[in-house]
Amino acid sequence: MGKQLHLNLFIHDTGHHEASWRLPESDPAADLDLAFHQRLTRIAEDAKFDSVFLADSPALWGDPSRRPSGKLEPTVLLAALAAGTTRIGLIATASTSYNEPYNLARRFASLDHLSNGRAGWNIVTTAGDAAARNFGLEGQPLHRTRYERAAEFLEVSTKLWDSWADEALVADKDAGVHADPDRVRPAGHRGRFFQVEGALNVRRSPQGHPLLVQAGSSEDGKEFAARWAEAVFTAQPTLAEGQAFYADVKRRAAAAGRDPDHVKILPGIVPVIGATEAEARELEAELDRLIKPEYAREQLATVLKVDPERLRFDEQLPDDLPTEDEVEGAKSRYTLIVELARRERLTVRELIGRLGGGRGHRTFAGTPVQVADTIQHWFENSAADGFNVMPAVLPSGLEVFVAEVLPILRERGLFRTEYTGTTLRDHYGLPRPADRFALAAAVGGAA
Amino acid sequence: MGKQLHLNLFIHDTGHHEASWRLPESDPAADLDLAFHQRLTRIAEDAKFDSVFLADSPALWGDPSRRPSGKLEPTVLLAALAAGTTRIGLIATASTSYNEPYNLARRFASLDHLSNGRAGWNIVTTAGDAAARNFGLEGQPLHRTRYERAAEFLEVSTKLWDSWADEALVADKDAGVHADPDRVRPAGHRGRFFQVEGALNVRRSPQGHPLLVQAGSSEDGKEFAARWAEAVFTAQPTLAEGQAFYADVKRRAAAAGRDPDHVKILPGIVPVIGATEAEARELEAELDRLIKPEYAREQLATVLKVDPERLRFDEQLPDDLPTEDEVEGAKSRYTLIVELARRERLTVRELIGRLGGGRGHRTFAGTPVQVADTIQHWFENSAADGFNVMPAVLPSGLEVFVAEVLPILRERGLFRTEYTGTTLRDHYGLPRPADRFALAAAVGGAA
Repeated sequence: MGKQLHLNLFIHDTGHHEASWRLPESDPAADLDLAFHQRLTRIAEDAKFDSVFLADSPALWGDPSRRPSGKLEPTVLLAALAAGTTRIGLIATASTSYNEPYNLARRFASLDHLSNGRAGWNIVTTAGDAAARNFGLEGQPLHRTRYERAAEFLEVSTKLWDSWADEALVADKDAGVHADPDRVRPAGHRGRFFQVEGALNVRRSPQGHPLLVQAGSSEDGKEFAARWAEAVFTAQPTLAEGQAFYADVKRRAAAAGRDPDHVKILPGIVPVIGATEAEARELEAELDRLIKPEYAREQLATVLKVDPERLRFDEQLPDDLPTEDEVEGAKSRYTLIVELARRERLTVRELIGRLGGGRGHRTFAGTPVQVADTIQHWFENSAADGFNVMPAVLPSGLEVFVAEVLPILRERGLFRTEYTGTTLRDHYGLPRPADRFALAAAVGGAA
Repeated sequence: MGKQLHLNLFIHDTGHHEASWRLPESDPAADLDLAFHQRLTRIAEDAKFDSVFLADSPALWGDPSRRPSGKLEPTVLLAALAAGTTRIGLIATASTSYNEPYNLARRFASLDHLSNGRAGWNIVTTAGDAAARNFGLEGQPLHRTRYERAAEFLEVSTKLWDSWADEALVADKDAGVHADPDRVRPAGHRGRFFQVEGALNVRRSPQGHPLLVQAGSSEDGKEFAARWAEAVFTAQPTLAEGQAFYADVKRRAAAAGRDPDHVKILPGIVPVIGATEAEARELEAELDRLIKPEYAREQLATVLKVDPERLRFDEQLPDDLPTEDEVEGAKSRYTLIVELARRERLTVRELIGRLGGGRGHRTFAGTPVQVADTIQHWFENSAADGFNVMPAVLPSGLEVFVAEVLPILRERGLFRTEYTGTTLRDHYGLPRPADRFALAAAVGGAA
């Protein structure tokens, strides 16, 4: 069996197209419905996806009249999804800017225990003033500061996950000794952002550490990924850009002393599938017709930090937008949008259509064979180790992908027919981090 | 049908007796095992308990060699338990001292949504320096300060839960309007401890607010309960003390302008059940023999803030212990232990035996009829609206209670045979909090 694709399902209520909730088939209350999320997760597990994933921000994002804005907190939702599944990985987004390391490291260790080794953490620094104002700040901290805090947050978290040795549980009933106290030690962290004594009150979890995922593609984001990420979700609109990003992150990981194969790159793909190409394009057009342009323009103006009045539907973007360096929010998302508009000379109306479909991710309307061809082409040409699958409409877009595209990928030997392991790390072919006690003992410096 | 008892199952790994893990039947890794917790919850749901409950502190508590110290984070664990159950309430402990209101209010709203209205929050301020040192502090904040923060935390949380009107979801697909923006409003909280803009990114949940539970019995604790709590877990060693506490909290609730019947008082009971009284006492003695006295003395010394050497096994407690006013930790637990020892003139060894069984809660060894009689006696003599059931050994102690004691209580018409409602508030006979938008409109001052 040759190299295998990795597939993650990005769950986003009724679908990644912002107007998907307006389709007759869609349940507008799906965003807060456990049964809806259970259904999607079971479809993905039956189809042997590596994982499901939930994005997140601790703030009400955008205008609630426009589209579903409810967000069940991901660690809690994934714990509920763990109970009805046995193999699929469960990746929750959580912010390093608006959590405390002890609480969050503990929740992920708990999720890893109760899912028997299926927890993943998509580490985000959370752009935007709205979130900051829910946590006592007037506005978001600087981009650079957020990443510095994130790096220290990861240092603390790994110390906490490693505060129990794998073999700490003794369970000697006769002697009345539950754990070996010499195999439990404080984190003892004292840094710039955090002072955390430890130890964690959760023993080392099945995966040692949850799978660490990252999705920022700015300079700071890529450096962080090179140091910490084991999987990277990214928006890459063209093969050439995908290849450049892939090479860049792998090179940075190697420079950081890591095995580049231990950082899996998963670009987002928004498949819109039809029996014919024309049918797929008609489905895409139907969705785009449901976008309310005034809403979309306001959202675009927020990201671009310009007055909405300056964005004219039938003209291109203004020439005098700020550079990425001047943006303190979601830098890579900003640059992606501006470059897409400039490269393809899109009007504001055209740009809104493109973003409504995939928010900068690669929207691909075509037949199952065309979608499979694209996936294979990126996979075999050093642009992807797999894909972050973002159906425009859920669950139907997932069902079609599973029924029509996966059999083609399997026929070509590119995707598993059965799980070969039990943990999320097993699925992605990633090693379990060594117990730091064992490491310390090996070099003669045990705790 | 007359007034009905409320029963909560307090889940505490292999049982509330600290040596329970040493019994042959006990799984020493149960503390981190989802299947174990699922089994207990299903037994409790089949038996029509009102709720299950998990205590918590964000710190490794005590010596890990002594007894199981793993604690899955409760909101995450209860979310997993929600998935396999349909009726039983799910009460998680969470700290107001070491969480941010936006994150925690959101997790409880999420749990309430995904359980269809079964979430409860046991509000604690978290005593102890160990927890404080996991969150950047050198030691615990003052008792009074912790309660002041807790009160403001509740103000913010209720504003966030009420930031969406019940009827905010419009879901007009034709017009493209998902929610009515006039029925979503910021929390806009600016206080001493917190500045939280809001709104929440979770719509108002099935219960409006999760059931609010409280368990501190100090002066500050009782005042907080009178203002906020809808159920109170408490340790009351004698009927007279139970009656005094019951009357005190009901009186305070009335003084705070609340219906005293909307504060349910649930003393803890640790039933140790045998076919005969002698058999029950033998089971209790067997458990007490498994306590390691040196460990227990160290733990007692920590609570009493004395040198362990000063606690002599065959003597009573020293006379010069501090008063409750001088203690900044868990005040009511401290007083309970000291008063128990003085009242019954217990030696340190005897005190350890009593605490090992129930940590100050009422341990009751007897036949099923004796246990039922005690429950009925407290219930019918204004000492309890129900009980917090804390089996010394789990799951066996729960199984015996369900099989032997519940049928007697049912025969006497004191406990339900079927659930009559679907939410946790339904089970406890507590009202759903009014939507503040509706309240504001009713007095002509809409948001």
